[in-house]
Amino acid sequence: MADTANIVYVALGGAGEIGMNMYLYGYGPVKDRRWIMVDCGVSFGDMDSAPGVDLVMPDVSFVQEIGDRLEAVFITHAHEDHVGAIGRLWPRIKAKFIAAPRFTAEIIRRKMQEAGQPTQVVKTVKWDSPVEAGPFRVTFLPVTHSIPDPAMLVIDTPGGRLVHTGDFKLDPDPVIGEPTDMERLKRIGDEGVLALMCDSTNIFEEGESGGEQPLRPHLKRIITGAKGAVAATTFASNVGRLKTLAEVATECGRSVALAGRAMSRMIETALETGALKGFPPIVPEDRIRDIPAENLFYLITGSQGEGRAALARIADGSHPTVKLKAGDLVIFSSKTIPGNEKGVYGLYNRLSEQGIEVIDDDMEPVHVSGHGRREEIEKIYRALRPQIAAPIHGEHRHLVEHAGLAKGWGAASIVAPNGSMVALDLNKPKIVSHVETGKLFLDGEVLVGALDGVIRDRLKMARQGHVAVSVVIDEDGELFADPQVKVTGAPVKPRGEALDALISDRIDHAISTASKRELRSDDKVQELVERVARRAAQEVWGKKPVTSVMVTRLESE
Amino acid sequence: MADTANIVYVALGGAGEIGMNMYLYGYGPVKDRRWIMVDCGVSFGDMDSAPGVDLVMPDVSFVQEIGDRLEAVFITHAHEDHVGAIGRLWPRIKAKFIAAPRFTAEIIRRKMQEAGQPTQVVKTVKWDSPVEAGPFRVTFLPVTHSIPDPAMLVIDTPGGRLVHTGDFKLDPDPVIGEPTDMERLKRIGDEGVLALMCDSTNIFEEGESGGEQPLRPHLKRIITGAKGAVAATTFASNVGRLKTLAEVATECGRSVALAGRAMSRMIETALETGALKGFPPIVPEDRIRDIPAENLFYLITGSQGEGRAALARIADGSHPTVKLKAGDLVIFSSKTIPGNEKGVYGLYNRLSEQGIEVIDDDMEPVHVSGHGRREEIEKIYRALRPQIAAPIHGEHRHLVEHAGLAKGWGAASIVAPNGSMVALDLNKPKIVSHVETGKLFLDGEVLVGALDGVIRDRLKMARQGHVAVSVVIDEDGELFADPQVKVTGAPVKPRGEALDALISDRIDHAISTASKRELRSDDKVQELVERVARRAAQEVWGKKPVTSVMVTRLESE
Repeated sequence: MADTANIVYVALGGAGEIGMNMYLYGYGPVKDRRWIMVDCGVSFGDMDSAPGVDLVMPDVSFVQEIGDRLEAVFITHAHEDHVGAIGRLWPRIKAKFIAAPRFTAEIIRRKMQEAGQPTQVVKTVKWDSPVEAGPFRVTFLPVTHSIPDPAMLVIDTPGGRLVHTGDFKLDPDPVIGEPTDMERLKRIGDEGVLALMCDSTNIFEEGESGGEQPLRPHLKRIITGAKGAVAATTFASNVGRLKTLAEVATECGRSVALAGRAMSRMIETALETGALKGFPPIVPEDRIRDIPAENLFYLITGSQGEGRAALARIADGSHPTVKLKAGDLVIFSSKTIPGNEKGVYGLYNRLSEQGIEVIDDDMEPVHVSGHGRREEIEKIYRALRPQIAAPIHGEHRHLVEHAGLAKGWGAASIVAPNGSMVALDLNKPKIVSHVETGKLFLDGEVLVGALDGVIRDRLKMARQGHVAVSVVIDEDGELFADPQVKVTGAPVKPRGEALDALISDRIDHAISTASKRELRSDDKVQELVERVARRAAQEVWGKKPVTSVMVTRLESE
Repeated sequence: MADTANIVYVALGGAGEIGMNMYLYGYGPVKDRRWIMVDCGVSFGDMDSAPGVDLVMPDVSFVQEIGDRLEAVFITHAHEDHVGAIGRLWPRIKAKFIAAPRFTAEIIRRKMQEAGQPTQVVKTVKWDSPVEAGPFRVTFLPVTHSIPDPAMLVIDTPGGRLVHTGDFKLDPDPVIGEPTDMERLKRIGDEGVLALMCDSTNIFEEGESGGEQPLRPHLKRIITGAKGAVAATTFASNVGRLKTLAEVATECGRSVALAGRAMSRMIETALETGALKGFPPIVPEDRIRDIPAENLFYLITGSQGEGRAALARIADGSHPTVKLKAGDLVIFSSKTIPGNEKGVYGLYNRLSEQGIEVIDDDMEPVHVSGHGRREEIEKIYRALRPQIAAPIHGEHRHLVEHAGLAKGWGAASIVAPNGSMVALDLNKPKIVSHVETGKLFLDGEVLVGALDGVIRDRLKMARQGHVAVSVVIDEDGELFADPQVKVTGAPVKPRGEALDALISDRIDHAISTASKRELRSDDKVQELVERVARRAAQEVWGKKPVTSVMVTRLESE
């Protein structure tokens, strides 16, 4: 159908697949539409889908298409999946400014700086003070989540009010920041909400997530019971949790030390920006060894099993300052992100092999999610009573389940996966068009498209290995020397005989017996050599490697 | 310490890491020791650790070392992680025979046949009838697990009795097979058990796993409530579950159809061997389309998200006979194995995108584990009262937790990870030596060692790509032609300029300006070219690819 809408919404990341959140809201007739972006996140490459890739970002072709009709970027909070792409993608984004609350704004500035981008475009916004951006008026309201200063956005347009929750839970007594003002939300609902875009992460979980405070007695019991050093790991940005852990440890008479630069930086930034008030004293690194193990409590990065993080290095004995030994305890005050299980369990085992005890949230209540469960989501619907619901931040089945819940609250709900442009002002929500979506990979220092073939070729080599062949021939295809073959990632002698020698012999034979006509074209020679090389490998190894053939044509004397 | 033991135990796989179970028991003084093997399993390669590898098996160097002092192989049950390596490794195993109960024996015969190995070495054993193997007398007792004919082994030696549980749970009312005879176990305990090697899988789970029967009412409610076709997926070998699912579906008035060859074969084998008695009628493939969707119930392979299994193909619309559509339902009557989460969730989403509902065991009680939880493990200790416990089948931390539990039951317990040779008859259990352990990869048709470098090179290419270079030079290092460069798995034009051309130019320059002396050795030329190629890539891409350099030296006219 034609796009006759005046208010539209489209996700470029975050709806239908988890990670790299990026949402756009548009106002005005299609030709002249003004836009704002909400969030600009990354996800991370893994061996299955993107080996060697540092960051995965949304394809921003559509953002480049709207050019300077994009008024501004609003960031809900500073988690990497909401802000991680801002520095790298800024050259492709023509917005006038980036707006976020104090802690988030500071993190954005740092990211812009690291990417060599201007920091003066970053505006620090105050809670509950509207920011104008073209036809939009955006108000940041505090919610609770597992990072300082998470925000819900109230987006007013001349045609109606939209609410974008960001990641949230309803912790009635948060360790840092303020609880969500439900009365305020109810008033917003009273004034009328056209559409709600709400976090779907825990839609399948009944009840409520539970606040930070209830963790304290459990942590206290565990730390009190420990005989040796105690360490706890969680996300570096979960500053509220770090505070909880540090306070409980201090109450238990332990000194708190940090391992992992990301953690110290997060705490510093939270203190500097006022998002965090007070933190127990931290033992300077060079004083750690003066304190007996039984009086120490470490906060350590690396809860997801990341190989270069402090905890992995401690487990391998390669950390410069922190050593753990038999009888010590590590608390994983975190949830393992799907896909990281093997790495995390491997870490558990390396610790266990050294006699270090591991406690995680399957064993003891040492973690609560930063995302609201079903009942918290229902509370948002009860307060805001939106006409339309387009669930965000979830895999496809989460969006479907969430849309069902929203319908129960009287909202016209729509499942709009990444790329679906939804009209919000045409009686009921409709998908009016589709925009390009996809992924960009940060590979080394270069952004490559997911469909460029670079990653596909690497995955092929990972499975099938590589054979490089060089042949030097004259005009008639006579070989000047034995074909040279280099095999990488295949057995050296699959059946006793060297694979490279076998392939070289076979190519020699094939070229010597081919017709002159066939050998006159370099392309034909290449094809022939490739075919022979792959067939030889298949015969003795059972696999056809990726093959690079180089033909050098010289004149015969 | 010196190995003065007469009874020893060593795991080559399965203790300290999950997957590929292989255990050895030895009797006699070290020089003259006779051995039996229990289980001979595989695990599967993944992109993180072994891309392109089909099967991962234990390194059997030690088994080859003991040669024909290995009397026999006993297989507890037919799961791949207990039996999958038998065919491929048999040429390296000098045992006289392989013994297993009927269903397991049949699966072993098939594996031997597929690998071109003799099937007459496979002995079908009867329950509770001892099998002699050198100084060992091994008795198979029925337990319950998620496959037909799972066995616990009672291993009598002249020096004492050992019990090896295999994988087990204590289902009081199993769908197939007999419940475990706890009175019998108590009598075995009364006679005295020297050492117990017991499954640790669910040691961290409180209570009991629960039997198959309690699933029925839940499945019935779900299937009755479904409007369209219903499909259920689980492991093909979980024949008891398949029977439960098929029976409930039949009771609900639905016809049962199968998708996935592995499943039909497992059911056939179970029926033929008498391990399974009765199965609801199965609709022949060519009759499926005559039956309305709302009367159909499919049993489908692919619960772990395997790309080539029936369910993935159904989700992609590429399955030849089975189509699912909006309004249909898929029940995952299974647990996702750690590491498979991304694949399984991806499958959920592909189904969800087509309007197909997914129910898994997080949402409804549609699955129970085949491994006993803590209370069931305790029941085994209560019955057998072993002097020694060496926990098996678990990651390291499972073994540690299990050893703690065993101690509580009065056993001298020991954590003996793969390769630790444990003396069982020296007062208390002691590790007396270490044997070689590690992994063998089935790569194509070839067994390669984990440390051979083949996989390491492939992982490198997966992350860093590959550059092949051919240079043709004369005796003095003069180039006959431009260096040829082929780049695979790197951006074609990282900064606008073609990477292959850039590398070629740089090599040309480097060779032209190098000293003649340096160019006289092919190795030196290779080193130079590699260094220049990698540096050029690093400069414009930020990564150093794996490099294959081929130098062809010709005589100048």
